[in-house]
Order: sequence, then C-alpha cells, then structure tokens
Amino acid sequence: MTTQGTPPMVDFRTSPARYRHWRLAVDGPVATLTMDVDEQGGLVPGYELKLNSYDLGVDIELYDAVQRLRFEHPGVAAVVITSGKDKVFCAGANIRMLAASSHPWKVNFCKFTNETRNGIEDATEHSGQAYIAALNGAASGGGYELALACGHIMLIDDRSSAVSLPELPLLGVLPGTGGLTRVTDKRHVRRDLADYFATRPEGVGGTRAVQWKLVDEAVPRAHFQDRVSERAVAAARASPRLSGGGPGVELTPLAKTRTDTAVAYTYVGAALDRSRGVAEITVLAPQTIPAVPAVNDLHALGDRFWTLAMTRELDDLILDLRTNEPEIGSWLLRARGDAGRVLAHDDLLLAHRGTDWLANEIVLYLKRTLKRLDVTSRSLIALIEPGSCFAGSLLELALAADRSYMLSGARQDAGPDAGPAAVTVGGMNTGPLPMGNGLTRLQTRFLGDPAALEAAEKRAGEPLHAAGAEQLGLVTFAPDDIDWAEEVRIAVEERASFSPDALTGLEANCRFAGPETTETKIFGRLTAWQNWIFARPNAAGPGGALRAYGTGKRADFDRKRV
Amino acid sequence: MTTQGTPPMVDFRTSPARYRHWRLAVDGPVATLTMDVDEQGGLVPGYELKLNSYDLGVDIELYDAVQRLRFEHPGVAAVVITSGKDKVFCAGANIRMLAASSHPWKVNFCKFTNETRNGIEDATEHSGQAYIAALNGAASGGGYELALACGHIMLIDDRSSAVSLPELPLLGVLPGTGGLTRVTDKRHVRRDLADYFATRPEGVGGTRAVQWKLVDEAVPRAHFQDRVSERAVAAARASPRLSGGGPGVELTPLAKTRTDTAVAYTYVGAALDRSRGVAEITVLAPQTIPAVPAVNDLHALGDRFWTLAMTRELDDLILDLRTNEPEIGSWLLRARGDAGRVLAHDDLLLAHRGTDWLANEIVLYLKRTLKRLDVTSRSLIALIEPGSCFAGSLLELALAADRSYMLSGARQDAGPDAGPAAVTVGGMNTGPLPMGNGLTRLQTRFLGDPAALEAAEKRAGEPLHAAGAEQLGLVTFAPDDIDWAEEVRIAVEERASFSPDALTGLEANCRFAGPETTETKIFGRLTAWQNWIFARPNAAGPGGALRAYGTGKRADFDRKRV
Repeated sequence: MTTQGTPPMVDFRTSPARYRHWRLAVDGPVATLTMDVDEQGGLVPGYELKLNSYDLGVDIELYDAVQRLRFEHPGVAAVVITSGKDKVFCAGANIRMLAASSHPWKVNFCKFTNETRNGIEDATEHSGQAYIAALNGAASGGGYELALACGHIMLIDDRSSAVSLPELPLLGVLPGTGGLTRVTDKRHVRRDLADYFATRPEGVGGTRAVQWKLVDEAVPRAHFQDRVSERAVAAARASPRLSGGGPGVELTPLAKTRTDTAVAYTYVGAALDRSRGVAEITVLAPQTIPAVPAVNDLHALGDRFWTLAMTRELDDLILDLRTNEPEIGSWLLRARGDAGRVLAHDDLLLAHRGTDWLANEIVLYLKRTLKRLDVTSRSLIALIEPGSCFAGSLLELALAADRSYMLSGARQDAGPDAGPAAVTVGGMNTGPLPMGNGLTRLQTRFLGDPAALEAAEKRAGEPLHAAGAEQLGLVTFAPDDIDWAEEVRIAVEERASFSPDALTGLEANCRFAGPETTETKIFGRLTAWQNWIFARPNAAGPGGALRAYGTGKRADFDRKRV
Repeated sequence: MTTQGTPPMVDFRTSPARYRHWRLAVDGPVATLTMDVDEQGGLVPGYELKLNSYDLGVDIELYDAVQRLRFEHPGVAAVVITSGKDKVFCAGANIRMLAASSHPWKVNFCKFTNETRNGIEDATEHSGQAYIAALNGAASGGGYELALACGHIMLIDDRSSAVSLPELPLLGVLPGTGGLTRVTDKRHVRRDLADYFATRPEGVGGTRAVQWKLVDEAVPRAHFQDRVSERAVAAARASPRLSGGGPGVELTPLAKTRTDTAVAYTYVGAALDRSRGVAEITVLAPQTIPAVPAVNDLHALGDRFWTLAMTRELDDLILDLRTNEPEIGSWLLRARGDAGRVLAHDDLLLAHRGTDWLANEIVLYLKRTLKRLDVTSRSLIALIEPGSCFAGSLLELALAADRSYMLSGARQDAGPDAGPAAVTVGGMNTGPLPMGNGLTRLQTRFLGDPAALEAAEKRAGEPLHAAGAEQLGLVTFAPDDIDWAEEVRIAVEERASFSPDALTGLEANCRFAGPETTETKIFGRLTAWQNWIFARPNAAGPGGALRAYGTGKRADFDRKRV
C-alpha cells in the first residue's frame, strides 16, 4: 500500500464474529454500532489506528454491519453509532495511512467510504432504519463525516468535545468523504460558517455547534446515555420499517474462487486478461422460475434467491476488481441465460416490495450495487449476444455501460434453433433502480427527449432484436456477425490505448448527464476536487502537507493559486 | 508561459481596431464574427496558431467582441460565428501552447474561455442576440465547443468536414471548455453516443451528426452561405431584443494605472501586498446621485454611468489579478462611499431594465462579473467598516465573499459624526443577479432556511448595523473596534498559511451550495476533473500525451485506473 510496495489482495467479505474494530449489539428495535478500533489492526503494516482512526479494513466492517442490519435484523428500526473509546468518537481516516498510500489507493478508499455513508442514508430513507450519531467525544474529519451521514447528530457537551473538519488546515486536503457537501447541502450550514468551520482545526462544540446546525443537540455528559436511548427508542417508534420484527435473512459466506486470472461465484464470474487490460464479466440468469406470487419462497430461499445472491456476488466483484485490479481498465459485461426467468424474479420483487421488507431490501441493494457500477472508474462495455438475457434488472447493466454492442441476427455458425439476441425493458427499468442523479438509467439515457423515453418504455415486456433496440436507442451499435468480432475488438483495444485518467474524467461526466443531487455532487464536484488536490505536490509531494503532518515541519507550499 | 519562464503581463483590454484574429462586421440586425487567426500572432513566442487554433490572446478578442456587440450594437439581434479560413472552422486551443504551459496557466485559460462561452449563451438568453455557428469546415475540440455555446449549429456537408472532440484520444485530456457537459446536458446527445464521439478523433459529420444531435443541420457547400444568411435573418426577426436599433454605447478605453504594487481605475482600485499574499480591493460608490427616473441620463452618460464604469473596472481587475498575480491568494474586498447613491443607481437600472436595453445590459454585465468572482480561485474576504457602502449591488461583493467581517460600533478614534458601518439589502440582492446555480446569493446563503431568507429580504432598504446584520446572518463575524484589527489580521494570515490547492477546493464547494446547472457543472464537475487530468503525469508528465503529441512518439501511460 505504500507508493512503492505492492498492495495486499483485499477481501471485502467479513462477518460480525470476525470484526476487529466494531461491535454490533441489537436490543429489540434499537441496534448499537460501537466503533472501537484495534490500534494494531491496520489492514497493512506501517501505521497504528490511534484515536479510533480508520483505514479500509475498518470501513469494510462498517459496510458489512450496515448491510447485515438491513437483511439480518428486520426488526431494527434505529441504529446508534457511537464509540467505545473514552472522550473520542472518531479521528477520521488514518493520516499516516493516507500519507503512505498511492494516489489510486487513496481515491478508491475514499470512494468506498463514500458509498458506505450513502448506504447509511439509503437505509434511513428507504428501509426505515434511522441512524443516530452519538458523539461521546471528539469527532474529527472523517469521524464527523460519518456522523453527517446519520439523520440525527448528538454531541456530548463537556467543554472539550467538538466536531471538526481539520483536513484543510492540518493536511492540505479536503474533507472529501462528503463532508463539505453534506454540511451545506444536507444540514444547511451557512456557506460562510462552513468556510470558517473547515479552516478551524479545533472545531466547534456545544451550543455554537447547534446554532450553526453542525449538530442537532449538545447534551451534558450526565444525561448523554439516557438521552441517546430516548432518542433511539423514539426514532424506532416513528420508523416506517416494514417488518413487524419477523426473522431476518442470514447473509451466509459468499462462495468465491479467486485466482490471478479468474473470479468465480455462483451466478457471476470474471475472466481477467491482463495483457489486454480487460475483465470479461458474465452474469447468469436464474436456473429456475419462481412461482408467482410466491413471497414465502422468497423468505425460504433467503440469500439463495437469485436476485439477492447475484447482487451480493456482483457487489463483491466490483469491490474486488476496483481495489485489487487497477490496471484492468475495461470491463466487458455479458448476461447469459433465460430472460424470462430474470423477468419473473423481477416481477416477484416488484409485486411485493411495497409490503414485504425483504423484497424491498433486495431491490434497494440492487439499486446500490448498480450505483456502485456507475461510479466505478473503469470503462464499461456491454456485449449483447445470442443467448444473452439483458432483460429488466440485467438490462440495467447494459444501460449502465458507457457503450453497448448488440449482435444483429444470428451467429453464422449457430445451430438452427439459436435465435438472435434480444433485450427486454421491464419494470426494473422504469423506476425502482434510480441512479445517483435521481433519474432511471433510461431517463438519463433519453435526457431531454421524452418521446424517445416513452417509445422505449412502451415496449416493456417485448423482446427486442437488434434492429429494433438500435432504432429505439437502447443500444449503441448493432453490428452483424460478419462485423461483430472486429468491431468489438477495435473498441476494446482502442479503449486500452487511451489515457486512463482522461477516460475516468470522460466517464464521470457522460454517465451523469442531467440533474445533480447531494450524492452526485459528492462523487462529481467534491471527489474530483479532492482527487486533484491529492495529485498536487502541495498535498502529496515530498514537502506536501500530508507528508509533513506529525513531523514537526511545516508544509512547503507552492503559493500559486490555480 | 512555459513551465519555467515568467509569463508576460497580460492585458485584457482591446478593441476591434486592434484585433489580429477576428473580424466583426455588422449588417443591420445581423453581425458576423469571423475567426481568422494570425498564425504568427500568439500571445507569447513558441507556437504558431495554425488552423484557426487559439490561445488566450485570441479569446480575449472574442470576449471583447461579444461584449461590444451587446453595448455598441443594440440593433444586432443575431450573430453568426464563422471562419475566414478555407475548410476549417477552428481547431480548438493550440496544443503546443497547452503543452508548454504551466498548470495554473492552463487552468486559468480554460476558465476564461468557459466564461466567454457562457457569456455567449447569456447574450442569447437574456439580450436577444441569437448566436449561430456557421461551421464552414472542420470544428475540432475547442472549435466545436465554441459552436456548442451557440444556439444553432450549421455544419457544411462536404463529406470531409466534421465536428469532433479529439482531446481524449489525441491528447489524453478532456474537452474541458464545456464540451462534455453541453453535449449531453444542453444538446441531449445520448450518453453512449457522446462517449463514442469523444473517443473518435475524426469526429462525425453530415447526416449522422444531425441524427446524433451534434449539430442542427448539415448543409451542402453550394447552399451554405445562403442558408446561413436565411437563418440569421430569421433568427434576428424572431429575437426579442429590446432595442429598436437606437444608438449604442461605446465602450471607451478603460483608464487604468498598473504598477507592481497597485492597480487603479476610477472607481475600483487594488493595493497588492506580495509579502502577505493579499490584494486590498476597494470599490468606490458613485460621486453623484442620478435623478430618478432618468433613463435619458443613463444613455447620455453611457459608459461613464457608475454601474457600467465600475463593473468594467472590476471585470478587468478580476481578469488581471487572476492571470497575472497567481501568488496573491486572498482578496480583501472593501466598498467606500455613500450607500444611498449606490442604491439610487441600482433603482434606476431596476426600474428600466424591463424596457430599456441599456439598463438591461448593465444589470446582465454586473451579473456576469459577479459570477466571475464566484469562480475565482482566490479567498474572498469582505471587510465592512465605517464609511463603507455595502448596499444593493455592492452588498453582492460581501455575499460573494467566503467570509465577511463587519466592524461593530464606531471606531474608537473616530470623530463625533462618524457613524457605525451599515449594510443594506436592496432590489439587486433579491433576483436580478443570480449565481451560476440559478439562485441569488442570498438564497444560496440561506439554503434550506426560507425563514432566514425572508427575514433578511424583509429588511430591504434599511441600513443594518453590525448586531442586526450578524443576527440576520448577513455577515459572518462582527467584532468591535477593540478586536477588529487582530481578528482580521489572524484571518488573513491564517488563510495565507493554508494549502492554496485545498483552499481552491474548499471554496469551489462552499460557494456552490444548492442546485447544479449546466454552468455550475462545467465549472464544478467538468473543470475539476480536467484540472485533475492536467495535473497527472499521463497528460502533462515528460511522457504524457500532451507532450507526446506531434512528436511521433506514443504517450507512455501509467495504466492504473484511479
């Protein structure tokens, strides 16, 4: 993980029994997530995780806990995030880790932490799990940014505890885990106060933190625990969580085979071709058709239900490749199997998501995983061939791609019963899986062209062959079998020849046509500025602020404003 | 302008008689701006401006022309932008210039070109000057981006002319002058087609360019001139331009004194303190009160009317300091004089801007100049002292600032008739001067707090002293005379000690709380990504694509995706 060294292969799979940094306790409708970071438990050697500071390993556990709370604890309607340390909530991302990390590692780490915090907000908004940040001590930098993801922030009022964003004055970087955006756009802290706050390393506490809207309440130490409990119980009571406390669905360990050239799960697999810089990703359709309506089957199958199983696998694959395979710059996306089964699974979930907590959670998880794809800095190319099943939920993969190629007609060497490729618009494409910009991928695709959107949506349920799909604008190109191999090869080789940085910028702009939200501002505006700052000598250079921190030396800044 | 060398002092003042690269011709309601770049006319030595490529000097002339069309040619209702070269419209920003430029120079250059293109859209939308891009040959990169700023794009259809964004494949950078944003968000080119288009150096021409919405029409060479004329006449006829063709207002040469330590105009001045990294900017109120209503006076005074004169000076000062003084990182903003006179000028303009073209233009110009301040990468600190006149239009300076300090009470050593400082909300603060995000600076300030906004707007016309202004949230801090000097000194010194890059990022985020528009996306998302790419070795490093271009060598990319 140092700039020179080879990073370790990171595994995102964990479970509460293996946590080193968090404790998850459930008491009826209220869960408590206690951050108690093991100083010696850094993901890689070279730094100590003092003062509840975190690295990727700590955040992987948080992500796991937030996911399990949704699936394994349907009865939980409020979650308290607090610290197991005395007088400190969390000091944010570990600075020595950041200083020693390569640029790609830092950026990928920030992206994942951002996604987890967005997931907390998603649980609050859509799953009826209210998050309360119980800041029983100082919350600095990423520590305060974690609190900002919670719907209610309580700060202990003891004349020493404060919230702060000291990144700029101490480290010469931004509070890049959503901090700047959430302070102004979510909490509506006045922009000049936000400016002052973000330049003040000691932060703001007590009444002033409440007045400035940085926290919701400041509570004296003597009453803190009681008040937190009261708030949590009240939040749980007010929650619209669907479940009446029925049994949860266990997220059993993912079966995964990982070699240097392949990643394999049950429904998802990837072949890694390092020489071409390509991952060939294939998603398989379900092997069976569920009876409809059969919500009981859904609960009986639990995490073996195709949509949930496939989504977990895809999620893990995205995280794995993003973190462990930075040189694999293009992902080719294929879907194989029976489109009817995909649509049947979609329909079952859509029919019940308004009333059944599990159906709701599965759709939300699929939504979040597709959003992860949207912000992945890899070129995404969908290949739609005979035998594929880009329908409904899986069509979203093609719609998320930067480009799609659909084979027109049958393969020349195919047998007589091999039909041509088809794509099918389904209910999953017209609402339940919005992007970060608040629009569906179809709406984003047909931005400013409502007639084209309507024409595509009207054909829902109908398998569309290449000519029709191209004419409706659902695919980018539709070469026939004579041109297919050559055209795809050129596209993939060309992509590999371009500047990886410029591609990242291109994709980050084209994918987010249309409106901006807090979420897209975090990934677009804020992240892009942070990445720029990270790449500048004033932060990461030998005399930069990140390197100078803690050495007693002042950073040596190039004072030119850019 | 080379990375090593000292850039020349750039002067933004010019006039048509001095243009080397553009010709401005007016024929009744239709003006034609012909780009005919002098290859040997680069702003600095070291490159030739071949194929109508441009540098800052070329764009300074374009900016001047667009401004003069609005003020000096009120009868012009349609503007055709075309090229004086055969078979080439414009090849975009000059690549050798970019490759040789320092990072700050590139970023500042792109910012100015973006502002000029936004100004073209502003003229179209608010001044009834419709812009038509008549692409009589290839429009590449920045050449096509210039066309994208026009409301109607006509491409000659001769089987060789195309529009293209070749930055990514050829140079490893983005089409950063609004290209990527305007293609998807303004012209609604489908995102996958935009992706393909931006990777195809040869571009797209003819019918396909029309089908993909890249241009509005492709016209055979034989009919091109006639069709352009027809379109221009029709656009002029349809235009809601206010003036019936009355005489324009000449923008006479700005009187300016520039030394190493001071910039002085009539109403605006700046003292430059290099050791502290500070520009102390003072704006003076008008010396007289206009009779109200006196729209004739306005026309008689022309560019001597205070608001117009002050705005021109401020505009020039911003451009001068941004370009020539990158190490002066903090601008202290003061306003001095009679607030009543400021408000009287504001009221005159506001009373007539719906019916009088000149009043309208002056308000729009002030709006654009304040927007320029909003995207300026310098810390802006407003100092509101006794004798100041932060009222109405000048209050916008304080609202644009990252922070404001207002002296509470009188100076201890002041005479008996020296009153305390006051700020006054006026009509200019409640609508006519929106920021790029579409909100007024007051709305942005009180984002999500409509009660606070209403409370402040309700006090319009009333001089508010420090306690009241602070309580209403109109100023950040209100120290009294005992604390004033120390508090301001610390704020300024602190600011100078922080990472200039991190400050740029902080300010770019805090200033644009709230909604995003095409304009803020260009300056936020797109520019931030472009700056990041510019700073990466894959673009600007010794083996990067910008340096490799034209050498016959391939760029040597670090293939890690970030």
